[in-house]
Amino acid sequence: MKPSEYDLDEPIAAIATALAPAALAIVRVSGANSLSLLAARFSRPDALARAPGNTLVHGWIVDGTGTRVDEVMVACYRAPKSFTGEESAEIVCHGGVAVALACYRAVLGAGFRPAERGEFTLRAFAHGKADLTRSEAVREIIDSRTDAARSAAADRLAGSLAGELASIRDLVVRSLAAIGVEIEYPEDEETVKGSFDAAPVSEAAARLASLESAWAADRLVREGATVVLAGKTNAGKSSLFNAILKSDRAIVSSAHGTTRDWLEAEVDFGGIPVRLFDTAGIRDTDDAIEAEGVARSRALARGADAVIYLVDATRGTDAEDEAFLSSVREKTAAILVWNKADKAGAGDRAPEGAIPASAKTGAGISELVAAVAAALAHDASPRSDGPAPGSERQRAAISLARASLEHALSAERAGFPLDAVTQDLEDALSAIGEITGETTGNDVLDAVFSSFCVGK
Amino acid sequence: MKPSEYDLDEPIAAIATALAPAALAIVRVSGANSLSLLAARFSRPDALARAPGNTLVHGWIVDGTGTRVDEVMVACYRAPKSFTGEESAEIVCHGGVAVALACYRAVLGAGFRPAERGEFTLRAFAHGKADLTRSEAVREIIDSRTDAARSAAADRLAGSLAGELASIRDLVVRSLAAIGVEIEYPEDEETVKGSFDAAPVSEAAARLASLESAWAADRLVREGATVVLAGKTNAGKSSLFNAILKSDRAIVSSAHGTTRDWLEAEVDFGGIPVRLFDTAGIRDTDDAIEAEGVARSRALARGADAVIYLVDATRGTDAEDEAFLSSVREKTAAILVWNKADKAGAGDRAPEGAIPASAKTGAGISELVAAVAAALAHDASPRSDGPAPGSERQRAAISLARASLEHALSAERAGFPLDAVTQDLEDALSAIGEITGETTGNDVLDAVFSSFCVGK
Repeated sequence: MKPSEYDLDEPIAAIATALAPAALAIVRVSGANSLSLLAARFSRPDALARAPGNTLVHGWIVDGTGTRVDEVMVACYRAPKSFTGEESAEIVCHGGVAVALACYRAVLGAGFRPAERGEFTLRAFAHGKADLTRSEAVREIIDSRTDAARSAAADRLAGSLAGELASIRDLVVRSLAAIGVEIEYPEDEETVKGSFDAAPVSEAAARLASLESAWAADRLVREGATVVLAGKTNAGKSSLFNAILKSDRAIVSSAHGTTRDWLEAEVDFGGIPVRLFDTAGIRDTDDAIEAEGVARSRALARGADAVIYLVDATRGTDAEDEAFLSSVREKTAAILVWNKADKAGAGDRAPEGAIPASAKTGAGISELVAAVAAALAHDASPRSDGPAPGSERQRAAISLARASLEHALSAERAGFPLDAVTQDLEDALSAIGEITGETTGNDVLDAVFSSFCVGK
Repeated sequence: MKPSEYDLDEPIAAIATALAPAALAIVRVSGANSLSLLAARFSRPDALARAPGNTLVHGWIVDGTGTRVDEVMVACYRAPKSFTGEESAEIVCHGGVAVALACYRAVLGAGFRPAERGEFTLRAFAHGKADLTRSEAVREIIDSRTDAARSAAADRLAGSLAGELASIRDLVVRSLAAIGVEIEYPEDEETVKGSFDAAPVSEAAARLASLESAWAADRLVREGATVVLAGKTNAGKSSLFNAILKSDRAIVSSAHGTTRDWLEAEVDFGGIPVRLFDTAGIRDTDDAIEAEGVARSRALARGADAVIYLVDATRGTDAEDEAFLSSVREKTAAILVWNKADKAGAGDRAPEGAIPASAKTGAGISELVAAVAAALAHDASPRSDGPAPGSERQRAAISLARASLEHALSAERAGFPLDAVTQDLEDALSAIGEITGETTGNDVLDAVFSSFCVGK
């Protein structure tokens, strides 16, 4: 079902926490009379049905026969003081898979239907609890893979983007209102011309442009990068891979690949979410199959955003290393790591630009991570602390708004009639309204909310 | 650190929900003044520090510099009305990995230390909020893989086992008190002998014995069973595997094996958690490697608790099927499935005892699941609805208590002095006290609570 077709009057329920063994889980419900409905599956129905908003009620979820399912705390919310703006509840139950499912089934039995994707947040939007930028920030904050991404989403959730857009909108509205007044009395041409003040429109366009720059600067944090570990078989790639994983506190996941050819893990390199690949070793070989393996490692490395190339410091580089490195450097940044630098004297021989490191002692790992992050950020603008868009949808509408304002400015400079300028300014307002949800069509709402998970 | 060495006065914190992307997550804190402590990392410190128990406070978790981390609801509890019996809070934040970690780190910065395994529940036990059977039930309910296991744990959490043990204890105490009174006045031998009433001790022993039977009957639900899908390559095993997974609503997980030889999934067969294996097909072959594959499938099948043997109904069985089946049936139960029974006329030819089914239409799947559950339960006693132990630790102490009571009864019958009988009854009480935690040593507490997850 499309989000725009959701029936927002029905009581809905969803398991809102990850369905895996843990101490606690949450089953979430929302809709008119949801506390009274829920009371039919609660050991203390009167206490729940009469609970004031923002209070917690202790009791048991029971099934249709009155059998106890789990001991829970129910967080009760009364409209409009809730996330959705509706009467709602969060049932904090024990965190087992079977117990969360059992509570959820009991709740469905009380007359709630399973919530659709993003339906809780859509209701918050529909009931005016959050504009579209804040609604999207909810998804962004959940999807954040690093603290830098989380922080930017939290700013949007707090309304930084919505506030900046409202302020930009005011500049345009002010200019438009002035023209509007004059157009009603068009008899005096000079008055009309004098009434258009380009300054606020220019300022609005400049502020939209800096939102666009912030989007570009956030690209790495948002999209992440691919980094490949390469080097000969005995260079110590796998030890370094493990050392990076252990020293990095923001590991999200580490998984063996479906093929045995490489390992893959997600790590945080200075705020940039990095997919780190440990590839098969490069070996001097006449064997056709092994040569094919080396060719695949090279292809993977050339397609990466950066390559960490390991050399065993006790052996140094040879022609094969150099050939691989120069082939990779045609396409991407490569950082040379002088591994096993802890072995006596080995560190001394590190060539210019190479980072001495030891997977064994952990020495040089943080320098390496910083060097990779710097190489990745090389082409990116420095990140700003100000407001920034959180989605391509928002970025596109911002670009559209700015283009309309710039068109208005050049039209006015070219001496076009003010009604043409007015149309441009109205187009800009409409584009801004689409970002915040004021003038957003169902197709946009569908695209936004269908990307949410169930339970949000 | 051992649970008995935990410092129960310190404020503690943990992420209590599964750390995977979801709508919501919970960071949990407990300890003296935890709301005031938490206020230092909250956007509305006064509202939080002054919040009455069992209320919800809306605001932002902030970091040490006051920067907003996430918008949250904080569930506030005041001692002793909380799970731990201490002042505590559940911070309901957004459910992303980075955001849950960021909130957790902010909370640690406010002066909480990371909670140890089971520390919240240990505090509940230490503060008299739950006896040991209820504490263990918390872990059992989280670990439950099927609804039947969850239901038995919920009964213990509600106090069914604690209540039964208290009632058994009363019978023994009554008998012991009567002897005690008489031993103080030992001049009249006949009074002493007449004062020991065997009836309540016999009843106590019988009730302990039925707890032991309930443990045995719950074995399947508790431990689960292994079921293997076998049959020829074209019998439709993988289709049936998928059909069972889809029709079963309590799927816990489904994972590809580390080798390509079989697939494995966890399903709920009538309350029994079943690990279902889809094996490589048995094929008529002269090839030595393939023959080895068939031998491995046979070994897997013979080691299973039950085997589902598939035959393509349009082809029927041949000598190879019969040989495989009779080899398997020496060791375990085998259920013959007449698959592709939807094809015209194929169902008619199903042999006696075979279940006609269709992986394609789903026909016969529920009959098959019921037949497998019945075969698995064949040797088990019927499950009782009454109280049952939830752990081997509890079962062992129950057996010890019963043995002591039976020793008392036979000692008394043999005419031993009543102080010997008294010792037996006191041993029984001590064993019962160990189950509920009244007389439990640190070693037992360590064993119990170190099996918990962090956050519980």
